[in-house]
Amino acid sequence: MQTILVLGAGLSSGSLIQYFLDQSDRGWKIRVGDINPELARQRIKDHPAGEAFHFDVFNHEQRSLEIRSADIVVSLLPARMHYLVAEACVELGKNMVTASYLSPAIKALDESARKKGVVLMNECGVDPGIDHMSAMQMIDKIKAEGGCLKAFESSTGGLVAPGFENNPWQYKFTWNPRNVVLAGGEGARFLHNGKFKYIPHHKVFRRIEIIEVPELGAFEVYGNRDSLTYRETYGLHNLDTMFRGTIRRPGFCEAWDIFVQLGATDNTYVMEDTENMTHREFINSFMKYRTDIPVETKLALYLGVDEESAMMDRLRWLGIFENTRIGISGLTPARILQKILEEKWKLDPGDKDMIVMQHQFDFILKDQHFKRYSTMVFIGKDSKQTAMSMTVGLPLAMVAKQILTGQFNEPGVQLPIIPAIYDPVLEELKEYGIYFVEEESLIS
Amino acid sequence: MQTILVLGAGLSSGSLIQYFLDQSDRGWKIRVGDINPELARQRIKDHPAGEAFHFDVFNHEQRSLEIRSADIVVSLLPARMHYLVAEACVELGKNMVTASYLSPAIKALDESARKKGVVLMNECGVDPGIDHMSAMQMIDKIKAEGGCLKAFESSTGGLVAPGFENNPWQYKFTWNPRNVVLAGGEGARFLHNGKFKYIPHHKVFRRIEIIEVPELGAFEVYGNRDSLTYRETYGLHNLDTMFRGTIRRPGFCEAWDIFVQLGATDNTYVMEDTENMTHREFINSFMKYRTDIPVETKLALYLGVDEESAMMDRLRWLGIFENTRIGISGLTPARILQKILEEKWKLDPGDKDMIVMQHQFDFILKDQHFKRYSTMVFIGKDSKQTAMSMTVGLPLAMVAKQILTGQFNEPGVQLPIIPAIYDPVLEELKEYGIYFVEEESLIS
Repeated sequence: MQTILVLGAGLSSGSLIQYFLDQSDRGWKIRVGDINPELARQRIKDHPAGEAFHFDVFNHEQRSLEIRSADIVVSLLPARMHYLVAEACVELGKNMVTASYLSPAIKALDESARKKGVVLMNECGVDPGIDHMSAMQMIDKIKAEGGCLKAFESSTGGLVAPGFENNPWQYKFTWNPRNVVLAGGEGARFLHNGKFKYIPHHKVFRRIEIIEVPELGAFEVYGNRDSLTYRETYGLHNLDTMFRGTIRRPGFCEAWDIFVQLGATDNTYVMEDTENMTHREFINSFMKYRTDIPVETKLALYLGVDEESAMMDRLRWLGIFENTRIGISGLTPARILQKILEEKWKLDPGDKDMIVMQHQFDFILKDQHFKRYSTMVFIGKDSKQTAMSMTVGLPLAMVAKQILTGQFNEPGVQLPIIPAIYDPVLEELKEYGIYFVEEESLIS
Repeated sequence: MQTILVLGAGLSSGSLIQYFLDQSDRGWKIRVGDINPELARQRIKDHPAGEAFHFDVFNHEQRSLEIRSADIVVSLLPARMHYLVAEACVELGKNMVTASYLSPAIKALDESARKKGVVLMNECGVDPGIDHMSAMQMIDKIKAEGGCLKAFESSTGGLVAPGFENNPWQYKFTWNPRNVVLAGGEGARFLHNGKFKYIPHHKVFRRIEIIEVPELGAFEVYGNRDSLTYRETYGLHNLDTMFRGTIRRPGFCEAWDIFVQLGATDNTYVMEDTENMTHREFINSFMKYRTDIPVETKLALYLGVDEESAMMDRLRWLGIFENTRIGISGLTPARILQKILEEKWKLDPGDKDMIVMQHQFDFILKDQHFKRYSTMVFIGKDSKQTAMSMTVGLPLAMVAKQILTGQFNEPGVQLPIIPAIYDPVLEELKEYGIYFVEEESLIS
């Protein structure tokens, strides 16, 4: 009998918990703890191998007690709480997996984890997660073939599936809205044709690339934070190009950029009297005092856009020029924008979501320049088994299984970039319809 | 005998220490401590009332010892170190004055300072400092006349004196270059005609106002962080307009904005291989990879400016398109820009600096709308007795004297916004040629 301790029963936990329950005849007990035990209970659905309970990560005693009696810990808690769990796991000699970015605090536990023989595995969801696994599998394959990698570009988007893109943005929230509103806030840094490139926040949504996805057509890609660190992670030191991006439907970025230009995505200060502010006043507060023209015209003039453009239609559709009261006090611009968007960009019943991921590899093999595309398109099953929940939860669960079954037991702070992890996980993901399609062409 | 402990012998300390030494026959001993004792010695210049010594604020024992034997402490240390001094002052029952913005940490000492009967006086330099004193004197005067204040706008600039503005920017560093490079980074928030207005960093230098200063002509003003908090500080709750800004010569802001648009003022990340990077590569790294046109043309196209404009001349004059190596590793964009600017914007021997401050007050008196301007222009004496050093150091020294002589003894965390402080200080500043000229006109 092995106990899997799942901490957090939020959005991404459904597919992961189901995976464990479905395979519980391996001798697994699945204990799911959440600050809201009802949420945990809904995930377990009376399954005999499952147990739901109230869990408070800040309760030191409970944290130790639960981790002590587990065989592996899967933390789906908010990222800033992982460290508390990781520290206890090292102390108590328990393995741990998460879908979150490896933090410096957890990285610092590497030595003590090694000493204790504990695996602290990070970044095992979709992005980060499947991106690492699929990229590294291909990179290792190109190397094995004798190819010399020159360029690597990788982009991912959490989107609405075709047929459900029924608004002018062709976008709805399929994941944490906060992250979408704050996206690009740190700018983007990458390597292009041997030159380091740096884009500040207020240019991220103007410096976009276009990609083509088989059967789905064109998408826009905007740069994603610091791509440069991936050279180290992936062991790629002679690259000329290294870029990571986020995928949206065409037209999204130029319209979103309006909010960035206004300053409406700022999360660093609280605005005055937001309770009585209207959407229209919110937008107006970012522009000069002037009463001779309507807010719409002022916006178009201020940012140099055509008042009759598709971009302005997208803004109008969001209701940002309406006299609707915000009704909540003490909000930052980003929180107000999020509130306005949540009403409009919510999934309708029956809507399906979609994950699109595309890697591009340029490599030299026998003096010839090849370009290989590797593309994953995965559409959610329904409103519970969303593409996001499945692509985050399933690889995470599969990595946990690799560790639980002793297939992987390299101690220390880990990422899923080694064949012993990525090969079996990518293989098993195919059973769920999560797979990559490759295309290759000779460039010169 | 009273001991004045001056901590920090940097840029702003000259006029302050000289003021104390000149009046040392009041029975004052002036002890000047700096991490570099030679700097302290240069300020004292063998004056019998002065003593220079090595001072390390992080040495707990020395800190306590020195503060214990002082009658008042003037901290000119970097702002983040004031708290260490303030805490010790409260504990040891000593009064303290600084020219820095009141920090939340020091604000939190208010109650314990009151209990101990200790004065913790902040913001007694020029900006903040003389701005508070002169504004509050005028605000109180308008109130006393029966006027109802509707708008208050206040701007200050540390500039080069006329005759020495001999570069295309009409600007040189007369103060901490770091603050100039990072200026505007938090955006600007203010109140205009009853509407709250918010400007993000990347629009601050585009949303400028023009002011006229008697005998000096036109200046540009860009918004200065959070003007809204001053309503509370100044006790102004029925204002329609409240704005604080920074003054530059015309043309400065549009050219500076180029750096902001590029992302060259970012201080949040370290660039790659800055040691071998040239100025030209620095600028190029913020733009798309493209080799068919020169960097200058690419910049003009990217930001929509005319390649033959005065704005581009200003950039060229700085040498940012030259192949000069930066030569230092591990720098942020802001630090690189600062390094480039420091070489070009340095004061030449014989150059004089200038402080310009202008308040505008709109008020209603007997149903008539009046506008009153109150303007200070102060030109430095020489390269030691700069306008900056005098306008920062003298009011600070005068406030210290008010406290030392028992003229002011209200305990707690204080700002120089009460008549008992601002009246004598503004009066005494006139003796040094630091004074305001008023102009009033009837608007309607």
